[in-house]
Amino acid sequence: MSVKYTNVNPRKLVEFSTGILEKAGIPRKDANTTANLLVNTDLRGIASHGVAHLSTMYVKGIKDGLINPKPGIKISSGAPATAVIDGDRGLGFVVGNRAMQEAMKRAKITGIGCVAVRNTTHFGACSAYSLLPVKENMIGFASTTGGIRAGAPGAAGPVTGMNAMSFAAPSDVEFPFCLDMATPIVAHGKIEIALRTEQKLPLGWEIDAEGNPITDPKEEFPKKGSIVLLGSTPELGVYKGFGLNIMVDVLCSILAGSMSIPEIRKQPGHGSECTHFFCAVNIAGFLPPEEFKKSMDHMISVYHGLPKAKGVDRITIPGELEWELEQERRKNGIPLDEEVIKSLKDLAKEFQVNYNLS
Amino acid sequence: MSVKYTNVNPRKLVEFSTGILEKAGIPRKDANTTANLLVNTDLRGIASHGVAHLSTMYVKGIKDGLINPKPGIKISSGAPATAVIDGDRGLGFVVGNRAMQEAMKRAKITGIGCVAVRNTTHFGACSAYSLLPVKENMIGFASTTGGIRAGAPGAAGPVTGMNAMSFAAPSDVEFPFCLDMATPIVAHGKIEIALRTEQKLPLGWEIDAEGNPITDPKEEFPKKGSIVLLGSTPELGVYKGFGLNIMVDVLCSILAGSMSIPEIRKQPGHGSECTHFFCAVNIAGFLPPEEFKKSMDHMISVYHGLPKAKGVDRITIPGELEWELEQERRKNGIPLDEEVIKSLKDLAKEFQVNYNLS
Repeated sequence: MSVKYTNVNPRKLVEFSTGILEKAGIPRKDANTTANLLVNTDLRGIASHGVAHLSTMYVKGIKDGLINPKPGIKISSGAPATAVIDGDRGLGFVVGNRAMQEAMKRAKITGIGCVAVRNTTHFGACSAYSLLPVKENMIGFASTTGGIRAGAPGAAGPVTGMNAMSFAAPSDVEFPFCLDMATPIVAHGKIEIALRTEQKLPLGWEIDAEGNPITDPKEEFPKKGSIVLLGSTPELGVYKGFGLNIMVDVLCSILAGSMSIPEIRKQPGHGSECTHFFCAVNIAGFLPPEEFKKSMDHMISVYHGLPKAKGVDRITIPGELEWELEQERRKNGIPLDEEVIKSLKDLAKEFQVNYNLS
Repeated sequence: MSVKYTNVNPRKLVEFSTGILEKAGIPRKDANTTANLLVNTDLRGIASHGVAHLSTMYVKGIKDGLINPKPGIKISSGAPATAVIDGDRGLGFVVGNRAMQEAMKRAKITGIGCVAVRNTTHFGACSAYSLLPVKENMIGFASTTGGIRAGAPGAAGPVTGMNAMSFAAPSDVEFPFCLDMATPIVAHGKIEIALRTEQKLPLGWEIDAEGNPITDPKEEFPKKGSIVLLGSTPELGVYKGFGLNIMVDVLCSILAGSMSIPEIRKQPGHGSECTHFFCAVNIAGFLPPEEFKKSMDHMISVYHGLPKAKGVDRITIPGELEWELEQERRKNGIPLDEEVIKSLKDLAKEFQVNYNLS
């Protein structure tokens, strides 16, 4: 079956999402911050982490009492470059943005700022945060723990988190370099997309408890198979994916004083807690930012000029296609699949918000 | 053909390597620092990055004039938490140790210290450095650029560096967590081991310029195939391995003000330059270190207790097997293959150093 897509206007989508979140109980400024981060993610083509979750994850989380719409965010700090935030179960976007701003503020003084965040909730895509410092001549890093849906080498069934991280650095005339990755082969949202758009999963993404491949996303959802970690097998480096996965838990949970680690996240009351880690590195602490950015441009041009494999038109660098998509979608709009469109229309009706996104 | 191994005494191996390096022109204190880092790496079972390179890489590098035995290391700093080091082409171990000590010194004051290093040389395994802060209740991160031997998605032939990184964190009664990874599927030293011990390469490690698999390491060496990046294929996440690979170049080279980036490292005069990046995170800047370490223990015990896949005896975590090996080898010695033993005996003869390692 073919899936229909409808193009929506990004500015109107921000306004609309702000309105919905405000009606759901989020203060207007926070609702607007959230809507911008969500729509920026859709602009970059990361449909797995954008407004597709507005109804199912964020509005639902507020209604179910899992997300605190008006959190009392608390900051404590043991050193000039570091801080821990207790997010008071606030919306991940609001807490995450606050935390990255705190990291950037500290980076301006000491050269680096790192903030670990406990007691918060899902914040969308990591790149929404790693790209914030880039605009101020800083390198950005953001990571998050996720629900227990990934396997681990030697373990049966889903046992580790859908942990993710992003690293972004500015260039001068080129796009910002941006690695944005789940430590499993794919983010769970990619499987949700396959389900919505009725596509098979590629072989190797997901396995059942006996290690047999799962390729039908419908089968995945009731069965809850394990998403395979980056590296796939011991011989091809799955212990690296496993190590990166644990690294995210160390930075986000353990450093934040949270015990929201694998298995424990499965227990009642932990299911909705996310933990985050943010870092901003002020380039001026190392060298003049202009020099750094010109070198980034040069490195990008070197990659573009490499000898290409047979049948390959161009070599692209992490962050490049997302950047191009953003420019194009700012002009032409964001294509949303019909199930997402329906969820937005349902929200419009429920919260009596005007639906006009074209 | 079967390969013979001889067990050597680790303390004597440190003494011996110190003696060789001193005779080769390295000041005694620096020679001892280097020997300790090298032997620690062999103790942890990372035979690809230990004394196997003493003759072929380090002594040879000094003799060829590529490594400066008495470098004038220069430090500049633009902020309290950050510094750049110019290694004056010193031995990577000497410059690397100096840089990590600098990062730790800054971390004690600001909470985090980051040092980017240009104009240095091969420093062995990243874990030799990431584990240094761990003893002082800090998280350690170390990374290095490497020679151009890895492929990149869409490119023909070897075009990117054998870049590597390590992340280590302390626990209380358990071993330190330690992720130590090349961003390609394997470090080049692993292919050298297969060559020395006459083993085939697993399918998927290396390909020729047309994308055909290379499994005979002898074929690899003259042909110089490409080592595949972590993730293997676009569908299984090779863009993540590519992104991590570039991230290392950004941190080590571009942030250090070096243009030692892919392709440029191929040019004459760049071949021996490595660049490094070190970070120390003072746990006390976030929470009491005792609390952090107890949580690490708990996380490790959670992983150990997970339901196991069929036929699996135990689940191990990155850094665990290396730690166990270290304890065992401190007692029983380090097994070195006959080609490495021969290279050490040749060094003993050349530099008139007493060879007694049993």
